[in-house]
Amino acid sequence: MKRQKLKDVQTKLMRGLLDLVVLQYLKVNPMHGYKIITSIRKNFGVYFGPSTIYPLLNELEEKGYLKSQWDLEAERPRKVYNLTTEGHNLLDCTENSLSHIHRKILTMGKNKPSISEALQMNPFLTIKDSDDH
Amino acid sequence: MKRQKLKDVQTKLMRGLLDLVVLQYLKVNPMHGYKIITSIRKNFGVYFGPSTIYPLLNELEEKGYLKSQWDLEAERPRKVYNLTTEGHNLLDCTENSLSHIHRKILTMGKNKPSISEALQMNPFLTIKDSDDH
Repeated sequence: MKRQKLKDVQTKLMRGLLDLVVLQYLKVNPMHGYKIITSIRKNFGVYFGPSTIYPLLNELEEKGYLKSQWDLEAERPRKVYNLTTEGHNLLDCTENSLSHIHRKILTMGKNKPSISEALQMNPFLTIKDSDDH
Repeated sequence: MKRQKLKDVQTKLMRGLLDLVVLQYLKVNPMHGYKIITSIRKNFGVYFGPSTIYPLLNELEEKGYLKSQWDLEAERPRKVYNLTTEGHNLLDCTENSLSHIHRKILTMGKNKPSISEALQMNPFLTIKDSDDH
């Protein structure tokens, strides 16, 4: 598969997981928007610019998942974002959902894993869950 | 977190992974559109209707990832979709990308897993990969 197509696939997937990635960054450290943009490019090899990231940060703040404050000690003032308790809950919930969906996708083929293999892939799995597909 | 919010999170994640899920279904068995809609609802607990799924199938066919043929033996004629070789390649590539991104998200926190733990989470991981962030 050509390099550009690979990039398109990665970008498309990342776009769908962007909320989760931003929340995860802010769980580890408070950050300003530009730092998030550069971290995504560095860690994931895909670029999402200010026109994507800033509106997303605003939306997450409006919904109560983030709280921002101005850092006036930097060269120029910049807004630093923190995760709220609600944001932590959303992150946990999104991570669990992704693990669940990812496991389902991996096991959709005919080679259904054993319960112990499925548990290794997703520790959030309950035994009951493993029977419903 | 409230039930409706949980549902919203799952639906949002699934929307970003819909191409992958559809390709994975069609890898296992050729299917018609309505069967895909009901399978997603049954296996993932989220509903994407014809206005989402049919345009997606058309788009994937136009790009050469799927090939359809009419099944005239059913009660009424219906289009059945198969994965092409290009579709298989796209699926493999997307699965690998998702595993890579998912692993990165899981290891973004400070509690970096051991190499053996990371390998359990993602069998596509190479040792070299684990050092690049």
